[in-house]
Amino acid sequence: MKQLNNAMVIDFYELTMANGYFLEGKAEEVVYFDVFYRHNPDQGGFALFAGLESIIKYIKELHFSTKDIAFLRSKNVLSEGFLEYLETFSFSGDIISFPEGSIVFPKEPIITVKANIIEAQLIETFILQAVNHQTLIATKAARINYAAKDKVVIEMGARRAHGIDSSIEGARAAYIAGVQATSNVAAEQLYGVPSGGTMAHSWVQSFDSEYEAFKAYATHYPTNATLLVDTYNTLKIGVPNAIKVIKEVLYNNPLARYGIRIDSGDLAYLSKQARKLLDDAGLYQCKIVVSNALDEFSIQTLLDQGAPIDTFGVGERLITSKSDPVFGAVYKIVAKEVNNIIVPIIKISDNPEKITTPHVKKIYRVLNQDNSPIADYITLYDEVVDQTKPLILFDPDHPWKQKEVLDYRLKDMRKVIVKDGKVVYSLPSLEEIKGHANESLSELWSEIRRFSNPHKYYVDLSPKLIEIKNKLIKELQNL
Amino acid sequence: MKQLNNAMVIDFYELTMANGYFLEGKAEEVVYFDVFYRHNPDQGGFALFAGLESIIKYIKELHFSTKDIAFLRSKNVLSEGFLEYLETFSFSGDIISFPEGSIVFPKEPIITVKANIIEAQLIETFILQAVNHQTLIATKAARINYAAKDKVVIEMGARRAHGIDSSIEGARAAYIAGVQATSNVAAEQLYGVPSGGTMAHSWVQSFDSEYEAFKAYATHYPTNATLLVDTYNTLKIGVPNAIKVIKEVLYNNPLARYGIRIDSGDLAYLSKQARKLLDDAGLYQCKIVVSNALDEFSIQTLLDQGAPIDTFGVGERLITSKSDPVFGAVYKIVAKEVNNIIVPIIKISDNPEKITTPHVKKIYRVLNQDNSPIADYITLYDEVVDQTKPLILFDPDHPWKQKEVLDYRLKDMRKVIVKDGKVVYSLPSLEEIKGHANESLSELWSEIRRFSNPHKYYVDLSPKLIEIKNKLIKELQNL
Repeated sequence: MKQLNNAMVIDFYELTMANGYFLEGKAEEVVYFDVFYRHNPDQGGFALFAGLESIIKYIKELHFSTKDIAFLRSKNVLSEGFLEYLETFSFSGDIISFPEGSIVFPKEPIITVKANIIEAQLIETFILQAVNHQTLIATKAARINYAAKDKVVIEMGARRAHGIDSSIEGARAAYIAGVQATSNVAAEQLYGVPSGGTMAHSWVQSFDSEYEAFKAYATHYPTNATLLVDTYNTLKIGVPNAIKVIKEVLYNNPLARYGIRIDSGDLAYLSKQARKLLDDAGLYQCKIVVSNALDEFSIQTLLDQGAPIDTFGVGERLITSKSDPVFGAVYKIVAKEVNNIIVPIIKISDNPEKITTPHVKKIYRVLNQDNSPIADYITLYDEVVDQTKPLILFDPDHPWKQKEVLDYRLKDMRKVIVKDGKVVYSLPSLEEIKGHANESLSELWSEIRRFSNPHKYYVDLSPKLIEIKNKLIKELQNL
Repeated sequence: MKQLNNAMVIDFYELTMANGYFLEGKAEEVVYFDVFYRHNPDQGGFALFAGLESIIKYIKELHFSTKDIAFLRSKNVLSEGFLEYLETFSFSGDIISFPEGSIVFPKEPIITVKANIIEAQLIETFILQAVNHQTLIATKAARINYAAKDKVVIEMGARRAHGIDSSIEGARAAYIAGVQATSNVAAEQLYGVPSGGTMAHSWVQSFDSEYEAFKAYATHYPTNATLLVDTYNTLKIGVPNAIKVIKEVLYNNPLARYGIRIDSGDLAYLSKQARKLLDDAGLYQCKIVVSNALDEFSIQTLLDQGAPIDTFGVGERLITSKSDPVFGAVYKIVAKEVNNIIVPIIKISDNPEKITTPHVKKIYRVLNQDNSPIADYITLYDEVVDQTKPLILFDPDHPWKQKEVLDYRLKDMRKVIVKDGKVVYSLPSLEEIKGHANESLSELWSEIRRFSNPHKYYVDLSPKLIEIKNKLIKELQNL
């Protein structure tokens, strides 16, 4: 266990900036920051948001201890006044956010923070880390689970994770996204993600023979005996030994539940041959579990080949999101209050896609008659949309691509999580978050969920918001 | 801070196996496990080992609390006898390891654990996680630092890291590998990695003008004023404002240290143009810092293009090892003691490369007259190499490729870290580890360090070891 205050998981520049704001007399200035991302991982069609619970916990506990402040003082960079200010520092602002387990899309604010500029700045690093890590893994797991169709997916990547949190919060994010269990005991202890597992090759090798190893295991664990069959030779030795042991020890036990696990070789071929051997022996109930560097792509091809697999054990490629291990959410200032009036702020950039959308916003999901989301619609925070009139959606990159929507419903997607520094949101249970994710995922068109060249979901700005954005861009171009 | 005992960061199957060993009366059986990996990340020529300090700390603290045991009991899987055994559980075995900051190569045991089978099994998950995560990041950072030549590299990936440990242990691993500093304050507080940083776009945007933002910053931080120049337009607005402020506020201050940072756009072009503007203004001392999705490949091409960059700020692609985010170290049983005799154990597999090398081993680095490593040589633990005789090295995959080495020196690469459960190794300081890494890296031939198709370093087995391995393979083939 780390003797660490999470407030110290912070880029030092947040502190130099905050100290600067303090010295500039800006400590009371109220600003708005949006958390958003620009591209879906793996060139997919969506992301599944996770990380909110970590953020809420962080905000609740946010403070700098005497020890932390002494450490910061020792760097001889920050002013004494600011260090004293940190002594009683806590978060007193507002946070609105999509609930955890929601589907989110590029360029829309997942979270908006309203706070004085020091508070807003000091929470940036942690918020981004939580969103980026957990949304990344949840999204990857949703893809993997989708590929696996009605088969079971188990997360077992702890040994290849990027440290303890990576393995634990990763297991939690994967569970939210539809994975059924984890190998990681800590994820159950801390979050209630069911953990399980049976044997490694070392179990088999520690016995004089594979048969004895299987027999001992089946004897001790009749209700959960998944026998690892590839230590010596899967089809010639492993499966026959498994069949022998299952028949001797488990077959006549009505409570027994058993399977085999294949962890190497051609999983399509081996699973088919193993299934044949098991069925020939009458072991129709024997499950087949496979593992070995699986991800959504290999699972999809295994099932396409008709591999009779019941459970996929997914390790490194899920817990690191190997094919795309960076979720690029950013935290950008979008407005500030001047004399209690909200003034929009923009950032333009030499990279056009890095131009931000200014102002404080509201995010609606546009649902059709079937309750399927067809677009997101972003308005000003105080804008009223007349839902009796048709909605004109257009591709922000190609405004001539328009679509008029007649029969629709708008759903306000974000909730107030923190108000004046107090958490006002009642934290859903892990099962509720998982349920919300499952529902949200199943409402998505398969055109958005597919892996190859998915349909690009529209995230539209209201005409008013576009007008403000274009006006600010013009003003800056004339600088 | 997580209320978590690191002993619980464990795959559940370690516990079901350990419980099984306990029930089988194998609790006192002594076994040997090797930690090794099969491929260098990014198809590189080596890996830089990190993670040992985390492992030592873990081993020292290893226990199961009353709360942990109550939790495990609640799963209704483990026997009461075993749960009681866990009450007084600690590690009583031996660990030998390469020191942190050593160069390691595929298929050689980085760490060997000798312990009773329960202890050896229960530490697997944590050891692999520490080695895999930290060695991954250290190796990536060594590559990035190599690409940057004599320029400075700063780690600033906290917001894109896979959770808190990923950012902190990642920053430490990067520092060991040659990176000069981190943005992450916690990495300094916990490990002494120097942390620093200056401003984000939000600083600039919170002021009415970029000029005012720069001026305020330069006034408060004259000795470390890196001005972020790309909020509006790097060359037209940002650099001219920076020049103006530097001249007004910093130029006549002999203690002042200043620079500009470019975080978007074509970094080669912009850095050259910015350098020209700065030099034309007489600001030869003004450093140029760049950032934006950098890694070893983009840094190499920037320098090849003659970009006059002083410092590279490297974020997501270092802290996640984006181009190859999985380090695949495994933990395999290689021997057990039967009546106090060490009996070698092998694992064969349907994937030929997953065949393990059995037995307890010693790892020598073969050094030539210049003290450059030319191969690693693995022998039996008790084998004596006659160093007066020539050494025959051969490619284990292609035994006909042989090389006779005459004038060489053998260096025993591993140290005893833990003996009978006690840490007997005196932990080097972070600076010592960094120094060792730097020395080890600089001894490597550039043919091994290059990124494209590097020289394949030989890791040879002694004839005795090969004989044992082949004999065991044959025995298993005849099963």
